Amino acid sequence: MPLLTRIRGPRDLDRLSLEELEQLAEEIRTFLVDAVAKTGGHLGPNLGVVELTIALHRVFESPKDKVLWDTGHQSYVHKLLTGRQDFSKLKMKGGLSGYPSQAESEHDVIENSHASTVLGWADGIAKANQLRKRDSHVVAVIGDGALTGGMAWEALNNIAEAKDRPLVIVVNDNERSYAPTIGGLANHLATLRTTDGYERFLARTKDILDRTPVLGKPLYETLHGAKKGLKDFIAPQGMFEDLGLKYVGPIDGHDIEALESALARAKRFGGPVIVHCLTEKGRGYQPALQDEADRFHGIGPIHPDTGVPVKASGADWTSVFGDEMVELGKEREDIVAITAAMLQPVGLKKFADTFPDRIYDVGIAEQHGAVSAAGLAHAGVHPVFAVYATFLNRAFDQVLMDVALHKCGVTFVLDRAGVTGTDGASHNGMWDMSILQVVPGLRLAAPRDADQVRAQLREAVAVDDAPTVVRFSKGAVGPAVPAVGRVGGMDVLREPGTDRPDVLLVSVGALAPMCLEIADLLDKQGISTTVVDPRWVKPVDEAMAPLADRHRVVVTVEDNSRVGGVGSAIAQALRDAGVDVPLRDFGIPPRFLDHASRAEVMAEIGLTAPDIARQVTGLVSKLDGRFEDAADAADAVDSVEPARD
Amino acid sequence: MPLLTRIRGPRDLDRLSLEELEQLAEEIRTFLVDAVAKTGGHLGPNLGVVELTIALHRVFESPKDKVLWDTGHQSYVHKLLTGRQDFSKLKMKGGLSGYPSQAESEHDVIENSHASTVLGWADGIAKANQLRKRDSHVVAVIGDGALTGGMAWEALNNIAEAKDRPLVIVVNDNERSYAPTIGGLANHLATLRTTDGYERFLARTKDILDRTPVLGKPLYETLHGAKKGLKDFIAPQGMFEDLGLKYVGPIDGHDIEALESALARAKRFGGPVIVHCLTEKGRGYQPALQDEADRFHGIGPIHPDTGVPVKASGADWTSVFGDEMVELGKEREDIVAITAAMLQPVGLKKFADTFPDRIYDVGIAEQHGAVSAAGLAHAGVHPVFAVYATFLNRAFDQVLMDVALHKCGVTFVLDRAGVTGTDGASHNGMWDMSILQVVPGLRLAAPRDADQVRAQLREAVAVDDAPTVVRFSKGAVGPAVPAVGRVGGMDVLREPGTDRPDVLLVSVGALAPMCLEIADLLDKQGISTTVVDPRWVKPVDEAMAPLADRHRVVVTVEDNSRVGGVGSAIAQALRDAGVDVPLRDFGIPPRFLDHASRAEVMAEIGLTAPDIARQVTGLVSKLDGRFEDAADAADAVDSVEPARD
Repeated sequence: MPLLTRIRGPRDLDRLSLEELEQLAEEIRTFLVDAVAKTGGHLGPNLGVVELTIALHRVFESPKDKVLWDTGHQSYVHKLLTGRQDFSKLKMKGGLSGYPSQAESEHDVIENSHASTVLGWADGIAKANQLRKRDSHVVAVIGDGALTGGMAWEALNNIAEAKDRPLVIVVNDNERSYAPTIGGLANHLATLRTTDGYERFLARTKDILDRTPVLGKPLYETLHGAKKGLKDFIAPQGMFEDLGLKYVGPIDGHDIEALESALARAKRFGGPVIVHCLTEKGRGYQPALQDEADRFHGIGPIHPDTGVPVKASGADWTSVFGDEMVELGKEREDIVAITAAMLQPVGLKKFADTFPDRIYDVGIAEQHGAVSAAGLAHAGVHPVFAVYATFLNRAFDQVLMDVALHKCGVTFVLDRAGVTGTDGASHNGMWDMSILQVVPGLRLAAPRDADQVRAQLREAVAVDDAPTVVRFSKGAVGPAVPAVGRVGGMDVLREPGTDRPDVLLVSVGALAPMCLEIADLLDKQGISTTVVDPRWVKPVDEAMAPLADRHRVVVTVEDNSRVGGVGSAIAQALRDAGVDVPLRDFGIPPRFLDHASRAEVMAEIGLTAPDIARQVTGLVSKLDGRFEDAADAADAVDSVEPARD
Repeated sequence: MPLLTRIRGPRDLDRLSLEELEQLAEEIRTFLVDAVAKTGGHLGPNLGVVELTIALHRVFESPKDKVLWDTGHQSYVHKLLTGRQDFSKLKMKGGLSGYPSQAESEHDVIENSHASTVLGWADGIAKANQLRKRDSHVVAVIGDGALTGGMAWEALNNIAEAKDRPLVIVVNDNERSYAPTIGGLANHLATLRTTDGYERFLARTKDILDRTPVLGKPLYETLHGAKKGLKDFIAPQGMFEDLGLKYVGPIDGHDIEALESALARAKRFGGPVIVHCLTEKGRGYQPALQDEADRFHGIGPIHPDTGVPVKASGADWTSVFGDEMVELGKEREDIVAITAAMLQPVGLKKFADTFPDRIYDVGIAEQHGAVSAAGLAHAGVHPVFAVYATFLNRAFDQVLMDVALHKCGVTFVLDRAGVTGTDGASHNGMWDMSILQVVPGLRLAAPRDADQVRAQLREAVAVDDAPTVVRFSKGAVGPAVPAVGRVGGMDVLREPGTDRPDVLLVSVGALAPMCLEIADLLDKQGISTTVVDPRWVKPVDEAMAPLADRHRVVVTVEDNSRVGGVGSAIAQALRDAGVDVPLRDFGIPPRFLDHASRAEVMAEIGLTAPDIARQVTGLVSKLDGRFEDAADAADAVDSVEPARD
C-alpha cells in the first residue's frame, strides 16, 4: 500500500495526480476486502464509495467543512483518509467504531446509525454557519434508499427554502439500500439515470468551460441555463428542481475527475444543490457483486478470495421467525408481512418468495410501515411488521396513535432486541420494552427460545383488536428452556423446593438460561428461588402479585433499559396490588453503550449471573440480618426491612 | 336550513341539483359559524372544505368507499352530511368529537389528530382492497401543510409504486396549515397554481369530451396525453408525476361541478391519482379571512357577527414562555427558536417578530425540527424547539439518537402537556414524561407556575451538552406557588409541622395547588404531610431518597401517564438507594381518554384532591393498623406493613 500508508489526513490527497488517486482507490479496495474479511463489517457499501470519498476530501476541507455521512456504515474510506488505518479491531472493544465517532476523530459528526438523518443535520449546521457568518461548507452524503425515509423529505423541503444557504447534497445512488430501493422515488431516479449519455457529453463541455474563466467568473450559471434548456427535451425535469433544489447529474461515481468537477461546481454554487452520483455497491469485489440479495451489505468474517463465511451460521432467532411465518401464511390467507427495506435481515425472504402478493417492502420508512399496517388491519387483514427493535423508535407515534388508538390487530416483530454489541450505541434494541409500556392495550411478548418464538407469534397474530409485539434477540437461539409449571399465564422455569421461598426471579426472554444460572448460584448460598418467565411481559400477568406475595424479594432481569422497563411495570403492578415486597430490577443502565461484543457489554453493565447473584445475595443477607457479606450487601441495597413474615 | 335538515346521509345528496347543492353549501357555512361560535372548535378549516366535502360524498359511496380525512379537524362538514347535525355539545362530554370517531359513525375511520397520517392509512386500506378483491374506493384528503410531514412522503413513495391500485389523493391546498405552508413543496404548489387559467380552459374541454364517449370509452387517456403535452410548454411538470402519480388540477375547490368532474375522473382512473384542489381557509366568513395569523384555525366561543372572543384570554403558560423567549433572545445571540408549523400556538410569534433571522418554521415536521436542532447545537447555537407535548412523540427517535447520543444542547419546550381535554384522545400530552425517561442524559423540568417557567427555561438553555425539556400545561397559568424551603434542588412547598411526618407528597408541575389541597385534607385526618416539588423531575434529585426515608409513605402526583412516569422513576430511585418506603403513584391511567373538559377528565380518572386524599388516608390507616375507614383502605392498598419504625 505505498500510497495509502502515506495518507495521514485529507490534505495529503492534494498532491496526488489523477493516476495516483486511481491507484489509491485500488489500494483502498484491497485494504477493505482484506481487513473486513478478518473482522466482519459493512463491506459492500464502502467498496461503492471509494472514489466518491476521495473526491469529497479533495474538494472539501474537513474538518473546517463538514463532510456528513448518512447511516454512517459507509464511512470506512473516510476513516482511512482521516488518519485511521488500524482496522484490526474494527467494531471490537477498544477498536474502531463501525460508524463515525466524534471520540475517534475531529472529522466525524453523526454517530447515529439510523437512516435518513443526514439532511436534517446538514440543514442545522448550514443554518448555524449562516447565522455565525462562517465561511465553511456542509456536504451531506445520502443513499437513494435513505431518501425514501420521511426525515429526508422533511429536510429537503426545508433546505430548498433558503436559496442563499450553501449546502451540498450528494445522492449516492446504487439503486439499493440493503435491498433494491422501491417506490416512486426509485422510478424517478431511474429516469434521471437514463440521461447518463447526455450528461457525460455535457460534463465534458462544462469542464472545459469551467477551466476557462471569462472576465474572472466561472461559466457555471450560463452553462446551467443551457443545460436546463437542453434537458427539457432530453429527460423529464427532476422533482428535485421542482422543489427548488439545483440538480447536477448523474455523475459516474467511480470517475474521480468527474466527481471532483461536479463537487467543485456544487461547492461554488452558493445555495442548496444536489449532486447525483451513480455508484456500484460492492464495486471491484466479485463475491459481493454476485450477491443479489444485499451485495455484502454487512458481513461476518469471510474468506477474502471467495467471500464464503468463515463459520456456517446456525439456527438463529430470525430464521425461526421466518420459517414460522411461512407456515402461518399457508394457514391464514389474511396474514401479510411488512418490512422497511430489510426483507432478508428480518427473515421475511422466504415468506416473500412463497407469497409474493402478501409482502410489502415500504422502503426505509418505519412510520409508513406502521401506519399502513393500521390501514391494512382496519380493512380486515393481519399485518406482521418485522423490524429491528431499535428502528421501531421511528414509529412510536404511529404504534400509539394509529394502531393502538384505533384498536388495530397489527403484530410487530422486533428483531435484534436487547444488547447487540458490535454495531454500537444506536443499534442496541434497549428501548422498546420501555416506550411500548405506555401504549394502551398493546401486548408484548418476549419469547425465551425457539419454541416460544413460534408459539407466541401464533398467540400474537390471533389478537385482532390491539397491537401485539414479539421481541427477540440477535444471533443464535439457545436450546429449549422447558417450563416445569404454570402460574396464571406465566411459565415456571424452576420451583424453589420450599414452601416459603426467598426470591422470585422474573426472567425476561432470552435471559432465561442466565436466570436459571443465577438461581443455582443463589441455591448454593442457601437462598431458595423461584424462576418465572411471564412470556407476555405487558400487561403484567394477574398472577404476578399473588406470586410475588409468597416471596421475600422480587428480582427482575431484562435485556432492555432498566428505566421504565419490565421491572418497573412489575413494581407498579405490585404497588397497585398493595404488595410491598422489596423489588430489585436488573437491566441495561440508562446510558449509551460503546461497541464491543454482546458478552463484553453484558459483563461491563453487570448483566451476568455471578454479578446479579452476588447482589441478590447481599440483599437477602440484609433481610436476614445476617450481614455475612457486608460489602456485597452495601453494593446491593442499604436498609431494607422485611415486608412480610 | 331547509336543505341541510333533510340530509340524513350522503345519498340524500344525490337528488339535489347544482343550484340546490350551492344553496346547501351556504346553509352549511351559516350553520358552522353559528354552531362553532357557541362552542368553539375548528372553524376556519371547515369553512374551507364545504364544497369539497359535498362533492366527495356525491362521487364516492361512503361507507363502502372510504373517505379519509387527515388531521380530522376538518371533518365537521363530513359529520353534517353523515347524519350528525347536533353540534350543541361539540367537543364537550357526551357531545360530538372534534375529530372523526368510529364510535360516532360508520363513515369515520381515522380518529388521530396528528397530521400527515392519511396517505399511510389509505395505502393500507387500498392494499387490503386489492388483496381481498373488493370493489371499493379509497379517497384521502390531505392539506398542503400536512404534505410537508415525512409520513406523507413515505406514503407517496409507496402509493406511486403500484400503478394498478386505485387510490385518490385530494390535496386540499389553502397555502397554509395553521400558518402559511413553507418550504420547497409550497413553492412547487405555487408554481402549479399558476396554471389555473390554463386548467380552467382545459377542464371545460375535458368535461365536454368526458360526456362524449367514443366507442363506449371515456376520452380520459387521450385527453391526459394531450394535457401533458400542452403542460410541458405552460408549466413545469410536477414532482407528483415525476414520482409516478397522475396529477389532476388545480381545481377550484369551491366549484362543486368542477370538483365532481375531477373526482369522478380520478375515481374511474384505476390507479393512484392526485387531485389538487385550491380552497380558501375561512371561506365566506369575513372575521376569519381577515385573521392572517391562522384564519380562525381553532377558536374558543366567539360573537358570530364580529368573531371577537366571548371572554378575553388571560395570562397563559404559552405567553409566559413566549415573553421570556424574547428576553432570552435579547440577552443571548446564540439562542434560536424552532416551530413545526405552529408559530402562534406555541407562543413564538413575538420572538419571530423580534428576531426574524433566528426563527425556523420547519413545517409539520417534528422529526426535522429535532434533527436540525441537533445540527444547530453541534455548530454552536442553542435551539429552543417549542412543540405540543403530544407531537413530540413523532420525534422520539431524533431526541434519543440525534440530540442525546450526540450530547447536543437543545431545549424542547412542551406546550399543552398533560390532560388537555376537549380535543380528545390524541391531543392529551400524557406520554412525554414517560418516554423521555429512557433518554440518557436528558433533563426534564415541570414548572409549577409562571415564575418557574421563566426560571426553568433559563436553567434549561444554560445546559449545552444534553437535551433539556420544559413541559407545561394548556391554558391559564395559576397564581404563584411559593417555596417555603429547599431540599437538594427541590422546592419544599409545605412543611409537615412534625419531626416524624407521615407522607411525602411529590407534586409535579401544575398540580402543585392540588397537592397543597391534598395536604390540607390529610392534615384534617391527622396525617402530617410534606409537599415537595422536584422542579427537575429527571434525573431524580439525589436528595429524594433520603427525604423519602424520613417519611412513612411516598405519594407522587403527575399529569402524565402513570406508566413509566415520574412516580415510576422515583420508585426506582428509591429501590436503587435501598429505601423501601411504600410508594403510591397517581397519574393518568394507561388508556385513551374521551373528549371532555379538563376538569371532567381529571375527575373521571380520579386526579382530584379529594380522591387522592381519600386513597392516601386509606393507606396510612392501614399502616397505622387503625382501619377506621376499611372501605377506603381496601380501595387504596391491601396489605402494607410499616417499612420503618
